[in-house]
Amino acid sequence: MIRVAIIGASGYTGAESIEIILRHSGAELTYLTALPEECGAVDEVFPQFKGCCALAIEPLDLEKLSGLADAALCCLPHKVSMGFVPKLLDAGLKVIDFSADYRLKDVSVYEQFYGVKHTDAANLARAVFGLPELFREQIKGADLVANPGCYPTGAVLAVAPLLREGLIGTDSIIVNAVTGTSGAGKNPSGKFHFPNMNENLFAYGIGTHRHMPEMEQIASEVAGSDVRILFQPHVGPFDRGILSTVYCQPKKEVSDEQSEGHLTALLKLYGDFYKNEPFVQMRTDAPAVKDVAGTNYCHIFVTHVKGRFVCFSAIDNLVKGASGQAVQNMNIVFGLQETMGLI
Amino acid sequence: MIRVAIIGASGYTGAESIEIILRHSGAELTYLTALPEECGAVDEVFPQFKGCCALAIEPLDLEKLSGLADAALCCLPHKVSMGFVPKLLDAGLKVIDFSADYRLKDVSVYEQFYGVKHTDAANLARAVFGLPELFREQIKGADLVANPGCYPTGAVLAVAPLLREGLIGTDSIIVNAVTGTSGAGKNPSGKFHFPNMNENLFAYGIGTHRHMPEMEQIASEVAGSDVRILFQPHVGPFDRGILSTVYCQPKKEVSDEQSEGHLTALLKLYGDFYKNEPFVQMRTDAPAVKDVAGTNYCHIFVTHVKGRFVCFSAIDNLVKGASGQAVQNMNIVFGLQETMGLI
Amino acid sequence: MIRVAIIGASGYTGAESIEIILRHSGAELTYLTALPEECGAVDEVFPQFKGCCALAIEPLDLEKLSGLADAALCCLPHKVSMGFVPKLLDAGLKVIDFSADYRLKDVSVYEQFYGVKHTDAANLARAVFGLPELFREQIKGADLVANPGCYPTGAVLAVAPLLREGLIGTDSIIVNAVTGTSGAGKNPSGKFHFPNMNENLFAYGIGTHRHMPEMEQIASEVAGSDVRILFQPHVGPFDRGILSTVYCQPKKEVSDEQSEGHLTALLKLYGDFYKNEPFVQMRTDAPAVKDVAGTNYCHIFVTHVKGRFVCFSAIDNLVKGASGQAVQNMNIVFGLQETMGLI
Amino acid sequence: MIRVAIIGASGYTGAESIEIILRHSGAELTYLTALPEECGAVDEVFPQFKGCCALAIEPLDLEKLSGLADAALCCLPHKVSMGFVPKLLDAGLKVIDFSADYRLKDVSVYEQFYGVKHTDAANLARAVFGLPELFREQIKGADLVANPGCYPTGAVLAVAPLLREGLIGTDSIIVNAVTGTSGAGKNPSGKFHFPNMNENLFAYGIGTHRHMPEMEQIASEVAGSDVRILFQPHVGPFDRGILSTVYCQPKKEVSDEQSEGHLTALLKLYGDFYKNEPFVQMRTDAPAVKDVAGTNYCHIFVTHVKGRFVCFSAIDNLVKGASGQAVQNMNIVFGLQETMGLI
Repeated sequence: MIRVAIIGASGYTGAESIEIILRHSGAELTYLTALPEECGAVDEVFPQFKGCCALAIEPLDLEKLSGLADAALCCLPHKVSMGFVPKLLDAGLKVIDFSADYRLKDVSVYEQFYGVKHTDAANLARAVFGLPELFREQIKGADLVANPGCYPTGAVLAVAPLLREGLIGTDSIIVNAVTGTSGAGKNPSGKFHFPNMNENLFAYGIGTHRHMPEMEQIASEVAGSDVRILFQPHVGPFDRGILSTVYCQPKKEVSDEQSEGHLTALLKLYGDFYKNEPFVQMRTDAPAVKDVAGTNYCHIFVTHVKGRFVCFSAIDNLVKGASGQAVQNMNIVFGLQETMGLI
Repeated sequence: MIRVAIIGASGYTGAESIEIILRHSGAELTYLTALPEECGAVDEVFPQFKGCCALAIEPLDLEKLSGLADAALCCLPHKVSMGFVPKLLDAGLKVIDFSADYRLKDVSVYEQFYGVKHTDAANLARAVFGLPELFREQIKGADLVANPGCYPTGAVLAVAPLLREGLIGTDSIIVNAVTGTSGAGKNPSGKFHFPNMNENLFAYGIGTHRHMPEMEQIASEVAGSDVRILFQPHVGPFDRGILSTVYCQPKKEVSDEQSEGHLTALLKLYGDFYKNEPFVQMRTDAPAVKDVAGTNYCHIFVTHVKGRFVCFSAIDNLVKGASGQAVQNMNIVFGLQETMGLI
Repeated sequence: MIRVAIIGASGYTGAESIEIILRHSGAELTYLTALPEECGAVDEVFPQFKGCCALAIEPLDLEKLSGLADAALCCLPHKVSMGFVPKLLDAGLKVIDFSADYRLKDVSVYEQFYGVKHTDAANLARAVFGLPELFREQIKGADLVANPGCYPTGAVLAVAPLLREGLIGTDSIIVNAVTGTSGAGKNPSGKFHFPNMNENLFAYGIGTHRHMPEMEQIASEVAGSDVRILFQPHVGPFDRGILSTVYCQPKKEVSDEQSEGHLTALLKLYGDFYKNEPFVQMRTDAPAVKDVAGTNYCHIFVTHVKGRFVCFSAIDNLVKGASGQAVQNMNIVFGLQETMGLI
Repeated sequence: MIRVAIIGASGYTGAESIEIILRHSGAELTYLTALPEECGAVDEVFPQFKGCCALAIEPLDLEKLSGLADAALCCLPHKVSMGFVPKLLDAGLKVIDFSADYRLKDVSVYEQFYGVKHTDAANLARAVFGLPELFREQIKGADLVANPGCYPTGAVLAVAPLLREGLIGTDSIIVNAVTGTSGAGKNPSGKFHFPNMNENLFAYGIGTHRHMPEMEQIASEVAGSDVRILFQPHVGPFDRGILSTVYCQPKKEVSDEQSEGHLTALLKLYGDFYKNEPFVQMRTDAPAVKDVAGTNYCHIFVTHVKGRFVCFSAIDNLVKGASGQAVQNMNIVFGLQETMGLI
């Protein structure tokens, strides 16, 4: 039984992680921490756990932690996380970190987009990027896994086969995505106040979203050459899910006569690429966010329209985009069956 | 042309009032005020007014106000309002006050429920309660109108005919109501954070809601004797509207044989009571909040079930429950056609 | 491993049952049936099961069924179910029936409210009512369990301790409830068309809802005397959950001075009544439907206001109000741990 | 006073048209028609009009119509409309047609996308395309105005200045749009059943949506050369609004150093282009659909990101995308002030 600590358990990804581990037959919750002002019995912080989780959320005590847990799901925010991860590693735990602090390999890009100095370059260098469908071998046995951002997970899975095969122009990718509101976290704000967010939809992070360089880094790694992505996120009036609609330009133009054969080849490419992936499912029609809400699945549909590839993917931002993928990574790190707790 | 100032224009009832006056053919907006930190061009504070309202929202300047306006829609919060209303009256304006500060005739009840000393008993004494369907004659020409609370408007209209005729037990009334979220105002909070409020419904103010004594006061006035009401509000995941379901006990028991004739008499009672009321519409089926959203109407349906009267009413909390009713009151005060700007 | 067949698997309660059994460590899905026009691979009918359920939904073949399953979750609609349940029993299966066909012990009440002749009085007589918190002993080993309606589950759990102790007037109970839309089932209709139902809330089934006699029957059984209930359902713009607000009159009047002690006694009564119930959780504040959405829990809060008891309960209509409770019943029938698959 | 008939008044665009004309000070409703099975008092078909509209919706009687109305807002569906429009014109009315039947100038494109023969080529030839911001001069005095589709309205307004100036590659435009559900009309269906559509978002009409050729036709007219557009619509869980996010490639590459000056020029271009347009408002931040819900405004924001122009527009699909624009066209046709009834 893997003993799991959740660091920063009082937010949405904390709650989602608690729920998943409660159902996991090879792991158990042993320690939950948060800032002192957010501590208390789990079922007071999250009434939905009344009757099924008797733990308290406590201020972090590193000594206690090291005796209690084998793995840490570190749900701290960006910039905060890199102050704690070295201590969690020193305490002997395997760490799955939810923040962006260990995702961007180029420190200068991190510092530009996050506006702070990176203080843990040593661990950044050895962290592996936790997108199992692309980097599974590196995750096995890793000490520190950088759990991917929600948008990069959905967007890159949607185009990875095209990138790997070199079929698309590397500066032609446009990722248009719509997320549910849970991605904004638990702190109230004007934008996400119900009377504003309800019946609403809008773009944000125009030209500046921090997941843009992250997408580019992974996509470039998959393609084996520099990839440039125009990423435009939007938020809509629902709790969970990200729908990514990705447009990209084939390197070779496809004539109308070739179109049908081309589409068959495209579907075969994706089918082969993901055939052993339990959490990626190819669709024959457009995926809906409700199809994957509450699950660790990524549903993908791909076609071409007017000379371009159009790729659709749907994930739950809190599961495959955060806590579910973290547990998937944890399972891989510890050699458990990858789907445990997740189906 | 009545010149209208809106005091406290930066919140939801302010915006709703602006929208109504912009469409009013006998009134015009001349002055909008708010706290300094909430001031700015109207279309910056409320993007929905871009292109149709060129005013700015400014800090209140009483001297300026007195030269600019005939009427004030005072949208300030409870407790704050009574500090300003005397000044608005002194400036020579007719005042429609949205707060609770001039609604409760019994100062001790006010002080108990609102937790502060009342500082303007003189004006409280002369304020009239602005529910036109019940107190129209008193509103005509009044200087100060206390605009009713949203819940009392819906609940009391639903049972007024029964109260007036003395048909129900005066301690038998239970008002179960569900409001949309705009009633909570513009300030973000955990309860109304979209990921919490969406897909949710809950009771609040159990046994303590401030609209309970207000309902009792009006109901007692209509009945001509003390009425006691159990009021239980809930909030649901929608923007606008209040559905009140009111249960009460007939004084005379109705046998099953009498039931049909009794129902006919009941419908006639309501039909007669509201026959000249432009904004109260009797339904022959259950009203839905969406039927009245964005309108100044109150839809009512009444029947009896298992020996009790069950009365349903639907209003828009921001219109008939606030800004629309305020304009209706303003129209009456100034002798305009009562429906101007409201249909 | 209990082998489970789901009869009528193509609707919402079917999908919910599939999801629960997929997670159940002591039961497995072996057979799914539906009307021929609703058959197909599970993941075509329900895209959310892509990758985790390889079964097909097939037309019912009784012979095949008898070799494949130990238990049937019978999700057929009212009136249809009683045509199939005898055959399922004959095939040697334990049956948990989701319809109303085996709930109402008085055939004449059934025939009045459902408008058809009851055709299976023999099995009706031996069916047990599957509300484990009240009738657990009878459920153990039963062949046929009538799974309760969603509204009766929430409403009766909210007042059962008061009824059992004889503390309330037996004709004083008013149940005001609001359900999410999944209760309406999968067939599209004008009322539940998104542009109508969204941003909406309305009452329905006024004086006629079929769950009223069901509530009265169970409540009477708990009270040991005839109980009469005024039940008024409403539907709101969310997927899952029922919030019941129940008003009832204490037999003994409580003076203001006694109020505090009285409340303490009330909480102790409920705490004792439900202390061993895994799925009933007493709250110290008002429960929200989102607290129980997706779970088999019933959250209850009770207080008194203005001389009346006011009891709140929240359940998920598809889980504790349908498929979850069915699996809870199945677990009891087969002697499994009651919470298996449900936490 | 222009006398207005609404043909096909029983649907959502009919209701929206009724609401607008009721507020119009230069026009009045005189005749409402629908299919016989959808007729009845207006306030029975649409409870929201109880008390403010006493008309009935009747089966169309052409003789009656010709004596009663000067203008027809023809809200009939595609394919049906061209069977009635010639008769409305013969009856001497000016016609604003909401369907696609008179929008596509190339009959073969119409027949390909709508799958029927066009039966009224004569009127098609003289119909003018009713997007006032681009074709106002042609609309003045026209007998037949083809009211634009909702998506083309939002998308083309977003890029018209770029097209007119020839600044973008004519095969580089990608329109990614999300609509509210009212666009789907009043007939219930599985996709728009509340429990499916709520908490959901999905793409549809992939590569095949009928508004694609309409967009291309208008865009080509504005550009003065053939324009090819990849249009991908989505639907989200809200009632009203379309957010269009349009990506296009500048003809001249912009270096990072030129970026700021370039953006200034871009904003000036749009500002000039729309400076006299009452219903197009330039924003300095991303527009939200809620900013324009219930209004006839189109809010636009434009910027460039990673070498591409990204243009955002928000409209209400039922107002600027249908009934509001129709009244705007009617106002122009009859020489009324263009904003009457619409602000």
